[in-house]
Amino acid sequence: MAEAAATGSLAERLLAGDKRALARAISLVENRDPEGDRLVAELFPRTGEARIVGLTGPPGVGKSTLIGAICVELRQADREIGVLSIDPSSPFTQGAVLGDRIRLSDHFLDPGVFIRSMATRGSLGGLAEAALQAALLMDASGKDDILLETVGVGQGEIDVVDHADTVVLALMPGSGDSIQALKAGVMEIPDVIVVNKCEHPLADTMIREVKAVLALGPERTWRVPVVRTEATKGEGVSELVATIDAHRAHIIAAGTLAERRARNLRAEVLGIAAARLRRDLELRAQNDPEWAGLLERVVSREIDPATAARELLERTRGD
Amino acid sequence: MAEAAATGSLAERLLAGDKRALARAISLVENRDPEGDRLVAELFPRTGEARIVGLTGPPGVGKSTLIGAICVELRQADREIGVLSIDPSSPFTQGAVLGDRIRLSDHFLDPGVFIRSMATRGSLGGLAEAALQAALLMDASGKDDILLETVGVGQGEIDVVDHADTVVLALMPGSGDSIQALKAGVMEIPDVIVVNKCEHPLADTMIREVKAVLALGPERTWRVPVVRTEATKGEGVSELVATIDAHRAHIIAAGTLAERRARNLRAEVLGIAAARLRRDLELRAQNDPEWAGLLERVVSREIDPATAARELLERTRGD
Repeated sequence: MAEAAATGSLAERLLAGDKRALARAISLVENRDPEGDRLVAELFPRTGEARIVGLTGPPGVGKSTLIGAICVELRQADREIGVLSIDPSSPFTQGAVLGDRIRLSDHFLDPGVFIRSMATRGSLGGLAEAALQAALLMDASGKDDILLETVGVGQGEIDVVDHADTVVLALMPGSGDSIQALKAGVMEIPDVIVVNKCEHPLADTMIREVKAVLALGPERTWRVPVVRTEATKGEGVSELVATIDAHRAHIIAAGTLAERRARNLRAEVLGIAAARLRRDLELRAQNDPEWAGLLERVVSREIDPATAARELLERTRGD
Repeated sequence: MAEAAATGSLAERLLAGDKRALARAISLVENRDPEGDRLVAELFPRTGEARIVGLTGPPGVGKSTLIGAICVELRQADREIGVLSIDPSSPFTQGAVLGDRIRLSDHFLDPGVFIRSMATRGSLGGLAEAALQAALLMDASGKDDILLETVGVGQGEIDVVDHADTVVLALMPGSGDSIQALKAGVMEIPDVIVVNKCEHPLADTMIREVKAVLALGPERTWRVPVVRTEATKGEGVSELVATIDAHRAHIIAAGTLAERRARNLRAEVLGIAAARLRRDLELRAQNDPEWAGLLERVVSREIDPATAARELLERTRGD
């Protein structure tokens, strides 16, 4: 009962915009505490008001610097901001990543900006689920804008950036692989492209390449704009924010915001369910004394992987 | 009975190295025909002899040209080769991809080279499973080397290239995003790196960058070699093949080949099982008359995605 009251008060404080309550709530979902799930379930009806912007792109293009610069811009309009940074875990020095964080930390003392970083510990599926829950908590706490920052590297079970209302892809001169991936269709076309570090001598070439790739694509009602920025100096950032605004106005006018959100929620439900099934499966395999034996028979080429998978599923279903 | 006899003969013809039998068998697994599963199960004890080399890298670096050049080299040593190319499906013109294929098709008339291309139709999970089964079929048919070509974009449920004995990452001057991804640790360090298009003026810069990134990594018994190639002219390809040979010799000497294969097979079994659970889940969701209603309640913010996922799992478990 005391615990229920404490939860109630955490929810209330979060709804009132208390930063510490929001931080604690996000820790609960990050640690997969069932209390976190309950909190999200309770607060979900109070979400849906925030604008969600996803910023993705290869490592090193200056995503965090861009987010910092966008925050400056949005704060001038007095908007409350939540930033959720989804970090890759590095087996190397995390220097580059930490370097980026420093700029973002200029905003650590601004009460209008709430910044949270979540690291990939192992399974991307679980992280994505926690990240989307954290975004919901930020939404419920009254943020006007939620900025999701992710490294653009393929799909986990749920791709966090796909849950944004507007997806911004950040590139820089030298992002040849990303251009090729867009061209080959292995990377989805975002809503807005920003070419950062635009004072680089090869920036014009990069912008021409981006535009050439976009010109190959099918005609759509929204023509993907290409914005140039030099985020360290704040150059081009007003235009970027105006472009994000324009995209939102477009999808609201076209009636596709609701449609996009419905599609994203559907994918989220299926993604969460699939991720849980997978975690369950791995746990059961670990705890199943016959799993090691089953695997041994695969390694000795006695039974093939698909047959072993079927046996594993039959065994875990029987539980 | 007649069908069983036909299957028996398909397996026999495949084991005897008949190309048409191999092609038909791969079509069965590609189309998810249960006959394909039975065939793989039957032939699995006859696999494990082939060397499996995975070649990955961003689109446009010339992976297919490299594979073509590697084939020339391996054919001189009279080795039988299977090539499995895993294509991304492009919403744009598939020009680049088709252009690559043309060079590979120089080998279409060589009876010692069997080339098969599989396209991503929707779920990467299902494709990966079929691709790994196809590799097993090539192995059973007596190929000495199986070359797996994939675009290096993140993980599906199973990452095909991870199932190779030796993983080669292909880069080119301009592969800045991949270098950054290696540096940030969001892309795994391969066994061999090849920098193709090495006549490009920025090739030396790229090679320096690659070496600098590798120098940041932890000490390992295998120092990742960086090989320069100009695949269109066959330059550096002998050295690349020699390096792949050296890696294999190293893992055999170190005793890690068996270990690596056991780990890969374990991941494959779990990956196949998880992919099947997910397909099952999506199918059941589609066929469940209450799924639309459940989703509607999420969209109207009545219940949150995690709760809906739990309800969906409970419903499908009850069946």
